[in-house]
Amino acid sequence: MSNTPSRRRGRRAAPNRLAQPARRALTRSHAPVDLLPAEQLELVHNASLDILETVGLEVLGDEARAIYCKAGASQDGNRVRIPRQVILDAVACAPESFSLHARNPENTLRIGADAMAFCSVASAPNSQDIDHGRRSGNQADFRNFTRLSQHFNIIHMMGGYPVEPVDIPSSIRHLECLRDFCVLTDKPFHCYSLGRQRILDALEITRIARGIDQDTLLKEPSLFTVININSPLTLDIPMSEGLIEMARHNQVSVVTPFTLAGAMAPVSLAGALAQQNAEALAGIALTQWVRPGAPVIYGGFTSNVDMKSGAPAFGTPEYMKTAQIGGQLARHYGLPYRSSNVNAANTVDAQAAYESAFSLWGAVTGGANMLMHGAGWMEGGLSASFEKFVIDCDLLQMVAAYLEPVEINTEELALDAIQDVGPGGHFFGTDHTQTRYKTAFYAPMVSDWRNFETWSEVGSPLAHEKANRLWKQALEEYREPPMDDAVRTELDAFVDRRIAEGGVATDF
Amino acid sequence: MSNTPSRRRGRRAAPNRLAQPARRALTRSHAPVDLLPAEQLELVHNASLDILETVGLEVLGDEARAIYCKAGASQDGNRVRIPRQVILDAVACAPESFSLHARNPENTLRIGADAMAFCSVASAPNSQDIDHGRRSGNQADFRNFTRLSQHFNIIHMMGGYPVEPVDIPSSIRHLECLRDFCVLTDKPFHCYSLGRQRILDALEITRIARGIDQDTLLKEPSLFTVININSPLTLDIPMSEGLIEMARHNQVSVVTPFTLAGAMAPVSLAGALAQQNAEALAGIALTQWVRPGAPVIYGGFTSNVDMKSGAPAFGTPEYMKTAQIGGQLARHYGLPYRSSNVNAANTVDAQAAYESAFSLWGAVTGGANMLMHGAGWMEGGLSASFEKFVIDCDLLQMVAAYLEPVEINTEELALDAIQDVGPGGHFFGTDHTQTRYKTAFYAPMVSDWRNFETWSEVGSPLAHEKANRLWKQALEEYREPPMDDAVRTELDAFVDRRIAEGGVATDF
Repeated sequence: MSNTPSRRRGRRAAPNRLAQPARRALTRSHAPVDLLPAEQLELVHNASLDILETVGLEVLGDEARAIYCKAGASQDGNRVRIPRQVILDAVACAPESFSLHARNPENTLRIGADAMAFCSVASAPNSQDIDHGRRSGNQADFRNFTRLSQHFNIIHMMGGYPVEPVDIPSSIRHLECLRDFCVLTDKPFHCYSLGRQRILDALEITRIARGIDQDTLLKEPSLFTVININSPLTLDIPMSEGLIEMARHNQVSVVTPFTLAGAMAPVSLAGALAQQNAEALAGIALTQWVRPGAPVIYGGFTSNVDMKSGAPAFGTPEYMKTAQIGGQLARHYGLPYRSSNVNAANTVDAQAAYESAFSLWGAVTGGANMLMHGAGWMEGGLSASFEKFVIDCDLLQMVAAYLEPVEINTEELALDAIQDVGPGGHFFGTDHTQTRYKTAFYAPMVSDWRNFETWSEVGSPLAHEKANRLWKQALEEYREPPMDDAVRTELDAFVDRRIAEGGVATDF
Repeated sequence: MSNTPSRRRGRRAAPNRLAQPARRALTRSHAPVDLLPAEQLELVHNASLDILETVGLEVLGDEARAIYCKAGASQDGNRVRIPRQVILDAVACAPESFSLHARNPENTLRIGADAMAFCSVASAPNSQDIDHGRRSGNQADFRNFTRLSQHFNIIHMMGGYPVEPVDIPSSIRHLECLRDFCVLTDKPFHCYSLGRQRILDALEITRIARGIDQDTLLKEPSLFTVININSPLTLDIPMSEGLIEMARHNQVSVVTPFTLAGAMAPVSLAGALAQQNAEALAGIALTQWVRPGAPVIYGGFTSNVDMKSGAPAFGTPEYMKTAQIGGQLARHYGLPYRSSNVNAANTVDAQAAYESAFSLWGAVTGGANMLMHGAGWMEGGLSASFEKFVIDCDLLQMVAAYLEPVEINTEELALDAIQDVGPGGHFFGTDHTQTRYKTAFYAPMVSDWRNFETWSEVGSPLAHEKANRLWKQALEEYREPPMDDAVRTELDAFVDRRIAEGGVATDF
């Protein structure tokens, strides 16, 4: 991490190019919020272990179930019940932090401890922009979101398919999409746990793109997957196969129960969190039985439903609290923590912005090490918006600027300048100001700070209208990252062969 | 403060009335963020005392200057230089918390310590709504914002004139406006420090409205004023007269330097904060020399300018940090802390929302006891928006819900419900859900959580369009709070007499 202001906030030389902060690793200088007193956290912890001991987990995959039982769980049909110490011993093997390697070593990330990294939007079935409205996810939009994720330095990795490209057959979709990730970006990326074969394909594509051998891949986590526990308390076959294969190869699982309070989890936040914690620990333990020390992330995604309709809600006060307590639980186990930048708005209006900002408040103060859906997520995940993508990049850049420590020293305290200016003067022209003003403050991409009259004269542009111009400019400025010809040839040969073979069966 | 969930989140009986949480006092259960390490805070503290000792303060009012000198400052023309111990001894006399009395005792507020109270927007020269656009402040808008501030329980006091009613002559404006505050609301309110006579009028109006005698008023803070230090380092005559008269009557001054980094303060946050602290302490000390123990609030308003234009910016990363450090400084002196909900957007778009949410993040985590401009502030203070007012009330209600502790106990941990539902089930119909779902979550006023299709069918309403409907509904539902006939007669007699006398001279 470079800490010189000129690099941190340096602008590109060309005056008309989109200005953005330079690429850098983010470190939290603030202590995260411990919302619950220690004895209350202990109650949640104990309740979750009670759940795993007494209710247990429905494990649909035979291999996974066998691993649970071998580790010490009792079996009753598909149900496994796991003694608390068995769980805790396994979780204790997981690392507190690790590196997630990118094909461009400059984009390799530290995950965990006081590091923080932001993902693109992921898994939206639809895309939207203000020119063409909302449509089903497709490859063109997938590629453009991927290019934007590469272009904006504040996005550290691909969190999954930004939109689901339903115009690619599902049997080969992962092959086309992962090749695009490798070619269009040089940042770390995600693969979906939809059975074993897709994971094996993803591992090979990742290995080829990084230009490393199998042994190096086994030593260096270079790929991640999100494992959703099917709440309440069910681990399905495709997810368990993915988790097992990823752990076996020393790759990253982000174990994330979707505990929506009032629907798939108790309506009380305490109950939803106890269930989240039970489900997360059960998945995390499984990774450690497969391979002790395998990189794994504690994912929190507890939110609430709309009391009137049962629809999922995000960026709510309840979301903020569970995001913080999720982080507190992850730290309790010494695990990296994943949270998300989420909202339930249908369009990029004030609601989209305040729900996102509240999500970020919860996630950042909750100590999130990995922020999923960092830019572009809308409608509770049902669409990815190009305008929201740019606004979210601005929000994330602001969060990054907020996390930079305030420098307190004699020069910055500016007693000489205050003395020189004196009462009633101003600081515009002072040396102290002149030497600092270009880099003193975060310069937003979207915010319009012109006065009302000037702003009105140019047509009263709204934030999402400016964002519309900016994502198009970013796509114009986007440059494909270089890739060695031999790597590209090997990548295409593998992907094309697997496509020719028909990809994977799609019968689950 | 009532803590029963049914009262806290109770809805009105009539189904079509605007639902809002019941009136209640807000308490922070979270510890505020101490952004600076103690030794760095000490550097800011020391720099500010250096400023007061070596640069000093330009004090334009003769009476104020005499008080500084009598307390131990040295004089050089209008300049006073104040030894650090003289300042610190005075600041140490100020109370950590106090009550701010309303004419309706149910609206009396605790100010300071872990209490938090929200003000309406104040002092905007213009008003705006989406029906009629932007116009100069006027009495009709003033009254409607005042009614909305009364109607929404989350607004605890009038922070000043929501908009400046320029259609009332300035000589009698304070008389008309303060009468309106007394009649249209029964919450505490603010008076402007524009010289001595306006304060004396405000004190008498407050006394009459509360139905108390002069001695009781002297014992019970019932009125507050914002004292802006004219940054850098100048205390003007009207402000010092107001401060002295308010302190003399044991009423509340909120001493708030407007230290805009890069303009009226150093471009470095450290320097701007050192200057803010010097100016705040100088004003706070003055209140204590006038009357030891007088209620006073430390106001932080440090923000930054737009690097390109010099325009003020709000809700920025720099604002968040200074809002937090301001609170840390106030706590260092054992003083209540004032921050603000601010943004620089021209219209109620995503920018207005995220800048406000970031301001709230800084203010709330910074430990603000009093939040000025809580609802309706736009354009860096140049306009008050009716739609933003409603959206901000929703944001403040969310903040209040966020600040409620999460209940962690056996019933809330819901082990029985999790056992009953079991893996693969859902919690919609369980007793645990049924007995809680109506009050389990915050129900927003503005957020639209319908799915995209349903939302599209009803015309794709934006957040500010819904807010437009809601403020009109709130005005329809507004009821003037009861006032004793004798009090009303006395109030009108006083105000009408003072108006007949011509109000105050307006030559400064």
